[in-house]
Amino acid sequence: MSQDKPLAFFPPLGHLRGDPLNSAKYAVLAIGLAAMAALTVPGARAAWLEAALWACLAFFAVEIILRTWQSRLSGQQPAYPGSAAFWFDLIGVIPVPLALAAGVPPEKAWLLASLWILKLAAAVPGLSLLGRIIRLEARPLASVFVIFLIVLLLAGVALHLAEGPSQPDKFGTLPLALWWAVTTLSTTGYGDAVPETFLGRSIAGFVMICGLGVFGLWTGILATGFANEHRRREFIRNWDLVTRVPFLRSLDAAGVIELTRMLRRQDLAERSVVVRRGRAGDCMFFIASGEVEVQLEPEPIRLGAGSFFGEFALLDGSPRTATVVTTRPTTLLILDVTDFRAFTAQHPDLARELEAEAARRRHPVKDAGHTINGTNAAQ
Amino acid sequence: MSQDKPLAFFPPLGHLRGDPLNSAKYAVLAIGLAAMAALTVPGARAAWLEAALWACLAFFAVEIILRTWQSRLSGQQPAYPGSAAFWFDLIGVIPVPLALAAGVPPEKAWLLASLWILKLAAAVPGLSLLGRIIRLEARPLASVFVIFLIVLLLAGVALHLAEGPSQPDKFGTLPLALWWAVTTLSTTGYGDAVPETFLGRSIAGFVMICGLGVFGLWTGILATGFANEHRRREFIRNWDLVTRVPFLRSLDAAGVIELTRMLRRQDLAERSVVVRRGRAGDCMFFIASGEVEVQLEPEPIRLGAGSFFGEFALLDGSPRTATVVTTRPTTLLILDVTDFRAFTAQHPDLARELEAEAARRRHPVKDAGHTINGTNAAQ
Amino acid sequence: MSQDKPLAFFPPLGHLRGDPLNSAKYAVLAIGLAAMAALTVPGARAAWLEAALWACLAFFAVEIILRTWQSRLSGQQPAYPGSAAFWFDLIGVIPVPLALAAGVPPEKAWLLASLWILKLAAAVPGLSLLGRIIRLEARPLASVFVIFLIVLLLAGVALHLAEGPSQPDKFGTLPLALWWAVTTLSTTGYGDAVPETFLGRSIAGFVMICGLGVFGLWTGILATGFANEHRRREFIRNWDLVTRVPFLRSLDAAGVIELTRMLRRQDLAERSVVVRRGRAGDCMFFIASGEVEVQLEPEPIRLGAGSFFGEFALLDGSPRTATVVTTRPTTLLILDVTDFRAFTAQHPDLARELEAEAARRRHPVKDAGHTINGTNAAQ
Amino acid sequence: MSQDKPLAFFPPLGHLRGDPLNSAKYAVLAIGLAAMAALTVPGARAAWLEAALWACLAFFAVEIILRTWQSRLSGQQPAYPGSAAFWFDLIGVIPVPLALAAGVPPEKAWLLASLWILKLAAAVPGLSLLGRIIRLEARPLASVFVIFLIVLLLAGVALHLAEGPSQPDKFGTLPLALWWAVTTLSTTGYGDAVPETFLGRSIAGFVMICGLGVFGLWTGILATGFANEHRRREFIRNWDLVTRVPFLRSLDAAGVIELTRMLRRQDLAERSVVVRRGRAGDCMFFIASGEVEVQLEPEPIRLGAGSFFGEFALLDGSPRTATVVTTRPTTLLILDVTDFRAFTAQHPDLARELEAEAARRRHPVKDAGHTINGTNAAQ
Repeated sequence: MSQDKPLAFFPPLGHLRGDPLNSAKYAVLAIGLAAMAALTVPGARAAWLEAALWACLAFFAVEIILRTWQSRLSGQQPAYPGSAAFWFDLIGVIPVPLALAAGVPPEKAWLLASLWILKLAAAVPGLSLLGRIIRLEARPLASVFVIFLIVLLLAGVALHLAEGPSQPDKFGTLPLALWWAVTTLSTTGYGDAVPETFLGRSIAGFVMICGLGVFGLWTGILATGFANEHRRREFIRNWDLVTRVPFLRSLDAAGVIELTRMLRRQDLAERSVVVRRGRAGDCMFFIASGEVEVQLEPEPIRLGAGSFFGEFALLDGSPRTATVVTTRPTTLLILDVTDFRAFTAQHPDLARELEAEAARRRHPVKDAGHTINGTNAAQ
Repeated sequence: MSQDKPLAFFPPLGHLRGDPLNSAKYAVLAIGLAAMAALTVPGARAAWLEAALWACLAFFAVEIILRTWQSRLSGQQPAYPGSAAFWFDLIGVIPVPLALAAGVPPEKAWLLASLWILKLAAAVPGLSLLGRIIRLEARPLASVFVIFLIVLLLAGVALHLAEGPSQPDKFGTLPLALWWAVTTLSTTGYGDAVPETFLGRSIAGFVMICGLGVFGLWTGILATGFANEHRRREFIRNWDLVTRVPFLRSLDAAGVIELTRMLRRQDLAERSVVVRRGRAGDCMFFIASGEVEVQLEPEPIRLGAGSFFGEFALLDGSPRTATVVTTRPTTLLILDVTDFRAFTAQHPDLARELEAEAARRRHPVKDAGHTINGTNAAQ
Repeated sequence: MSQDKPLAFFPPLGHLRGDPLNSAKYAVLAIGLAAMAALTVPGARAAWLEAALWACLAFFAVEIILRTWQSRLSGQQPAYPGSAAFWFDLIGVIPVPLALAAGVPPEKAWLLASLWILKLAAAVPGLSLLGRIIRLEARPLASVFVIFLIVLLLAGVALHLAEGPSQPDKFGTLPLALWWAVTTLSTTGYGDAVPETFLGRSIAGFVMICGLGVFGLWTGILATGFANEHRRREFIRNWDLVTRVPFLRSLDAAGVIELTRMLRRQDLAERSVVVRRGRAGDCMFFIASGEVEVQLEPEPIRLGAGSFFGEFALLDGSPRTATVVTTRPTTLLILDVTDFRAFTAQHPDLARELEAEAARRRHPVKDAGHTINGTNAAQ
Repeated sequence: MSQDKPLAFFPPLGHLRGDPLNSAKYAVLAIGLAAMAALTVPGARAAWLEAALWACLAFFAVEIILRTWQSRLSGQQPAYPGSAAFWFDLIGVIPVPLALAAGVPPEKAWLLASLWILKLAAAVPGLSLLGRIIRLEARPLASVFVIFLIVLLLAGVALHLAEGPSQPDKFGTLPLALWWAVTTLSTTGYGDAVPETFLGRSIAGFVMICGLGVFGLWTGILATGFANEHRRREFIRNWDLVTRVPFLRSLDAAGVIELTRMLRRQDLAERSVVVRRGRAGDCMFFIASGEVEVQLEPEPIRLGAGSFFGEFALLDGSPRTATVVTTRPTTLLILDVTDFRAFTAQHPDLARELEAEAARRRHPVKDAGHTINGTNAAQ
């Protein structure tokens, strides 16, 4: 069950980018799928296409072995063998050889390579999220589906009766009329079957309006569900990050919750520019993990996890006083000016502390410069 | 009126699944509708198809009698005769024999069997909900419909004038131009009538953009209405369940309301796995009805209605310590980690009580092990 | 400006239904538009159709005179002459005779009768609302429109280059390619111009996805704006109604605002059944205007504006104890069980008062029965 | 990075309208794009079209020089050279001459003038906003895109297998089947490739429903993101305006935040009518910048930035007592009656002060009439 799947309480910290096996996987996936598509084109069919596909298959097979071995070594829980990713990987490797062995012609057998795309499903967290939304919103979605079915069937029967006599090849049987109904209700409108009588067109107009309504309900249910679920996951991720910022330790639980709801997370690659000197600023930053370099004169300062920067622009509306660049993959928590003002209005202690810190940064005692790193420093 | 229809204050407790008459009904419905569709296909017309349809009709007639009898016996209010379900059932049985008696050819008469699909409307709660939304949002929906009509008519007239001379068979009369307008405004776009002049295409482009706008308003109204109404119904259902959990009795009314808004309900079949040992957990569970088995060593523990489990994972972020499986159809109330933290921050008493209970579960006095069942036990 | 248009602080009280001139207007409008459409069909052109149109025109001319006269007599502000409705009415009457006098053939001249549909715009409050939303959300809507234009132009140029050589009649000029782009971006998809090259189709796929995105933004902006504006208007209407219920006079301003946000308004015609004896109830009712009859034994009780009923079902979950029917057009304010519980939890005084009133209603002193009417009575 | 781009803390104050270079730019842009489109039409190709295009190009080249010079002179930060607008302007000027010099035929070379439309992107703030939303919502958008890709590929493979044998020219290769899938999933439905077998049509129906779901998710994510971001920007803009109204200086920080969230901003041109005497009013106005004239008898009063008007209608529901017209481009902050009531209920001090001010305005001491301007005056 998805609510028990291993949660990434800690952000990925850019380790995916550093995994050469993973980057290669997506390249191989793209090549493999393109080769599979090309193999179905009569003129393009060639021996080297099949060779490329075999190479991709081999790569994926080796990947399974490597990952299983790696998982055994690291002993990390949950183990790779038995996980969803493992099964998706296996589904990508087994069927094609089986089909070829069973005598299926190659251009058909290799269509099974389309299952490789399921590897993306394992890589993207949104799919389990979608499954969860569909489970939670199953009742309203089922209701809308029943409305869809009722309108579909009644529209099909009505058009079969209204248009059947004049267009027997397009509305002469109920299945044909239902095909028209489904293309119309979904507002696809191929135009292969179009009512021609006045009655048929009147009913069709009504069906289209119903289609918009069904669509609207569908959209609303999925959108609301997605928004709720996404917000919930972000909260879980941000919670841990907030509790790791020393400056915020004085907050009570209610304050932490409030702040967690306000923060947005941003994952940055190495050497990304976070703020640029001289620009106006509308947010401040907490470093959840990683490190940034504040390019101050005469010498830059490095800030590590738990530090914050960018508060000057919020306190007095001044432009950014220094450019800030990440030195390695970094996760930042962003607090917008909107939320900053709302939050400091309700937590005056924190606001005072922040202002004190900002004042200290503006007029630093020179020999205190080396103690700033690791706790809190400027921008 | 729907706001007075009997409300299911208690969850269905899986009794629908246990009703063999009901399961059979859906199977018969599917067979009947498929047979009806097949009957309209010239090549597939056969005596046995009609026989199948007669059998379905007979089944539905018997069902009405059985349900009426059952309703009389049980004396349950509201009674089945006179309910919406009763009338939908009757509409499914009466018209076909009448039409056949009136001399309508069988393949036309049996199209009336499409009314059988209305049985789904009675089974799905969402339809009365949709009716209610349409009643409550009648004014904005009517406004958008008037906008739709105005754009439709003016677009029809404009295209009739612009395209009528060059394409008299497609835009030569106003009804034809209106047909084009309705397919375009709903973004269906069959392509059977397409403007060809520069002026006509410019107007058509504007109409399409208007169509997107009308569609957007429609979607927004229905989606907002659906979300509000769904939330309201869930609250009513959850309210009763919350008041039946002994652990939550110490809450004041405001706390119960708050918690009721946070909980999500999940109906599980017998032998469903709720949590799996070793997985990370992001929610805890209250049992509203039914029973679960916590697969602890050396012997499993059973928890009944009013108990809770899964709180360890929320208190210290540890993985699930035991697998939990339902022993019969069970309704759970799920409290997410987000809401758990927000709630315990505001109700520290409850949090302390929960922690005390969790501590007791971790180090249970051995001979107290048998008294745990029925009140609160571990995971 | 719409924010200064006369606001209906008091609900319409059903007076529209009682205005025979108004009902006739909509019938004449429907007949007139149908006749206008029929006049454009060559086979249906007939003298009596024109006669019907002239009769409709005469009716609308007479209506303007009657309404102007009525407005003068009543002296009501704002006056009808000079209002938007007046100008829409005038636009419906003047152009057709002018066009006929200028020698336009009748079937063309009568197309100007399509302006009659603007009368609907004056009758439906939603149009001024839409205008207001568009004004308030002008900036984001303009942004999305610019995105739309940029994608449109770049897609047109790209397809003109990719498909122009192979399909010169469909993509050979930029205007033709732009026509394809607008039908595709709006997901209308007539299919009159379809890319055929691999490059063209790849770009087209990308354009379709952009179209979905533009559409999503559009939908979101309009839907959010509509929801906010609708809520605001409802609040203004309900505010006055709440302050007229004697039972709620003890509330402070914050309580009135809170309750105003919770209530939903329902306009009912004469002899509508509000609640039905024996049904479960999930809401209570305040009478804003009009009158209802509580069908109690031995004799029914009538409740007027300012009374409330239906609270038993919320206090103890019992089914409705009596059927309640309106005796004339009535406006009710509905308080759902959700909001009832939330509200009484925060206003315990009101809850106690309500329970006291409910207890009094359950065991009424017989000779006090005649004083109940006009203040607060049972259900 | 967009969160550091120069923020317009102060509203544009109509200076754009006063910039003749800017107005000319949009006219030249429209003419240039129309000429470019006309140049691709064989019959319309003419020497003067090219001349017009060269004139537009020259205008844009001159504009770059003028703006660079102006930017140098004013020394305003951020400087025009190096900004996004600068690069968009440069992209509009360089490529066409280069292409012509490289020997590209004129009607192709001038297609590069379509890049001129990017100038709109620099002018509209919504584009950076959209970029920001896409960056913030990158994860859920990527998830939905992966779902889209998976459904697309599997649908393409399924239809290639189901329809390929019977329609080899439309589904015979996988790329052809994928083209069908993308037009269907986006509900565009050109109708150039339509499944004909029962199996193919059943799969197509399922694909259409999936398309609606994907579309719904997409819509929801973008709409939610847009709404949040727009609200955030409005807050930043309104915050400064609120702090500049003297009457609101007594508010604490929490009150300012609350009020800032309630206010809506409206930019009006010179001589716009804000309220009209005798109309009902549902809002009051604060002047953020600019000036209005209250047309009182015997002599009108002028109100400058920091003043407010329109409070009578909210305090006692009376109609507007005077017409108010702007005397120059003016930015107003609008407080709706809904929010006015909610806010004054929670800030009784401010409500009393407002009533005192209103009473003073109704019965002004005659010789105090000249001191009213600049602080607070009537309507």
